[in-house]
Amino acid sequence: MATVAAPEPVDRLFLHCRELVTLADGPAAGARRGKALLELGIVPDGAVAVRDGRIVAVGATADLRRRFRAGEELDLSGFVVLPGFVDCHTHPVFTATREHEFHQRCSGADYMAIAAAGGGILSSMRAVRQATAGELAQAVRRHLDGFLVQGTTTIEAKSGYGLSTEAEVKSLRVLRDVSREHALTVSPTFLGAHEFPPEYRDDREGYVRLVVGEMLSRVKELCDSCDVFAEPKVFDRVQTVRILSAARSEGLRLRLHADEIEPMGGAELAVEMGADSADHLQRISEAGQERLAQSQTVAVFLPGTSFLLGKNVHPPARAMLERGCAVALATDFNPGTCFSQSMPAVITLACVNLKMGIAECIHAATLNAAASLHLDRDLGSLHPGKRADFVVLDLPSHEALGYAFAGNPVALTVKDGVPVVANIAEFEPDLAPATEPEDAPGA
Amino acid sequence: MATVAAPEPVDRLFLHCRELVTLADGPAAGARRGKALLELGIVPDGAVAVRDGRIVAVGATADLRRRFRAGEELDLSGFVVLPGFVDCHTHPVFTATREHEFHQRCSGADYMAIAAAGGGILSSMRAVRQATAGELAQAVRRHLDGFLVQGTTTIEAKSGYGLSTEAEVKSLRVLRDVSREHALTVSPTFLGAHEFPPEYRDDREGYVRLVVGEMLSRVKELCDSCDVFAEPKVFDRVQTVRILSAARSEGLRLRLHADEIEPMGGAELAVEMGADSADHLQRISEAGQERLAQSQTVAVFLPGTSFLLGKNVHPPARAMLERGCAVALATDFNPGTCFSQSMPAVITLACVNLKMGIAECIHAATLNAAASLHLDRDLGSLHPGKRADFVVLDLPSHEALGYAFAGNPVALTVKDGVPVVANIAEFEPDLAPATEPEDAPGA
Repeated sequence: MATVAAPEPVDRLFLHCRELVTLADGPAAGARRGKALLELGIVPDGAVAVRDGRIVAVGATADLRRRFRAGEELDLSGFVVLPGFVDCHTHPVFTATREHEFHQRCSGADYMAIAAAGGGILSSMRAVRQATAGELAQAVRRHLDGFLVQGTTTIEAKSGYGLSTEAEVKSLRVLRDVSREHALTVSPTFLGAHEFPPEYRDDREGYVRLVVGEMLSRVKELCDSCDVFAEPKVFDRVQTVRILSAARSEGLRLRLHADEIEPMGGAELAVEMGADSADHLQRISEAGQERLAQSQTVAVFLPGTSFLLGKNVHPPARAMLERGCAVALATDFNPGTCFSQSMPAVITLACVNLKMGIAECIHAATLNAAASLHLDRDLGSLHPGKRADFVVLDLPSHEALGYAFAGNPVALTVKDGVPVVANIAEFEPDLAPATEPEDAPGA
Repeated sequence: MATVAAPEPVDRLFLHCRELVTLADGPAAGARRGKALLELGIVPDGAVAVRDGRIVAVGATADLRRRFRAGEELDLSGFVVLPGFVDCHTHPVFTATREHEFHQRCSGADYMAIAAAGGGILSSMRAVRQATAGELAQAVRRHLDGFLVQGTTTIEAKSGYGLSTEAEVKSLRVLRDVSREHALTVSPTFLGAHEFPPEYRDDREGYVRLVVGEMLSRVKELCDSCDVFAEPKVFDRVQTVRILSAARSEGLRLRLHADEIEPMGGAELAVEMGADSADHLQRISEAGQERLAQSQTVAVFLPGTSFLLGKNVHPPARAMLERGCAVALATDFNPGTCFSQSMPAVITLACVNLKMGIAECIHAATLNAAASLHLDRDLGSLHPGKRADFVVLDLPSHEALGYAFAGNPVALTVKDGVPVVANIAEFEPDLAPATEPEDAPGA
């Protein structure tokens, strides 16, 4: 008689996923490119075994049922399971929405006119400066909740509506305090160089000195990365290099708003500086595409912003993919140009406007985004040892992502092996009890 | 001493809406146009009193609290309340999704090539013909559920994936049976002239004879209206006129797919035939715009379809609004070109691509859509005597509709005075118990 091994105990078994999209057939090493983007590692009737918040095994349900014994089982029959979305470009540290500006823009008002009338980034800046830490924390917590509802389990989150040392420190502290008690994984980025505040309108040099001096020294313990809104009419090439160099010296990693409105060799600059990402890229040059393709810098596309700005200008995504660039997708969630936290909507926009295939989109919204945050060894695909972060979609197949437009296809979000948000009643009894205090931290 | 009237009993009071967008300051009479589209009739801290599924009163919370005594009260503090969305152009009678085609199109495959490979409308036709009435009913019920989740309380619903007498009758019977037991109000439309089925590929005249003869006589008791996909290469002008005339003689009202792909004077034709709506209109002529403006025919824009087809061709919405056309918005929900049931997403697209203002969009998605279905005396605005159909939005203001992109802003859908779908946990205890049988009707 053959010896039958006793089943190994695990905390939870997720069973019978119609499609389990793992991405993983080996330990992740960096962002994927080219043909590798087509390999989704789909397990039909798939299962995930979880212990201590980590994936112990993925595979066929019948197989995992034999190998493991779980304290709890969750039947995901009929659902498609993907790694939790990783949104690698967001601006969630704001208080008030700016819907009025959106409608002004749709009626033809131009961005500069809106800014001149007191709108734009400076309007959010005034609100953030005025808010107490407690008020800001309440808004940030609501924004982080919103990501989980839409299936996002990890975000990069920028400051940049403070634009003074005090308000940038407040923004990053609130972000740290709120994210410590929140299920979402948050990688914070300092974006003091988001815009010039009014008090430095006529002393741009003075503001750059403030950023590279006092601000960086105060915020460096509060963030992973530093970003700059590099544009010829905002932070120009010389200012951008100064700020990024100073941040690098302080031990921060780099990201860059590059080539969004006017071309300025932003992609090339991101590569030269060794940035983890170059974001937007509607105006990227041929040389910039080639430099990105030869580098570790991830190209981050933000198609929600182009769409909501009513601009029919898109980065040359197909050409970049064919050159071998590593690409990621993100929402750019912010109160001005993209009030959306939906990675599924971003995927639809990437299919329609960037002509990306669904397998490319799924990589770009998970593993590659994680790679741009140096989190790809820990999450971004469903591989044993990684954090058990995944999203359960009420869709007939992974291809229906993109196709199913608007609404919310997310049935359940699982973070560190625990169901944290259920959007359909069926899963509500499985939810982890909410543990977040209602009062604001650090106020 | 003044006499204080005893409070009048009602079934339910909905209180403290941050904004109650009523649209109504008098009994509705037809679709609104021009400047009237700017009048939203917003009541701050608003309330609705409901009895027997109808609105008894709308007004300030303090006022309605004095005037009425309710069996049940629902606190809507912090929420924006609008009339339930009316989606006046949908194709929900299908079984299988067609996500693969969507991705083929995004990769550059053309619609005709997809059809030649067995895709397109004829692929849905094969599935609908094969399905039992029970299978079809299950799919239709799921689709109707999806509308309520997104805040839509009334739809127009077309057949048109049967394309044989038997399958068209089956489609409309299933629609009737499912909608009888469903909260959603459904106005059924016969669309036998959606495409030529393969067995009539070489005998188009024969198919038109079938539609105007056997089909119409069998379906006329099952629908309110008849629609035709009028396109030079599909149902041409002569065929369209024959079908619409025959339908009118049978007592049906008329709708028309007009000027979508190639211009053919579809809008003018819709007006000539006295149709309730002319839909799509990307290729509408100047004359067509003028004819519509002078008529009772409602122009229905379907911006989701243009968007998902990746076409940057839009109807001249601003010009049409300025000429005084009555306009409505709809999803065009269907498995091929627009798999979306989200009126909020349609409103974002209308803002961005059609340059419609938010007040115009709200009218177009409620009262004007209802007018195109002859339902405007019964629903489409929040006016005493009308059905108490409304949608509770988790948004800071009505202007945030459009601005808040993707995801689902709907917190609660109320149909005939009863909360029927809650998308946030807060409202779940208030839901009406589900009363629909799980087994399929009429199978």
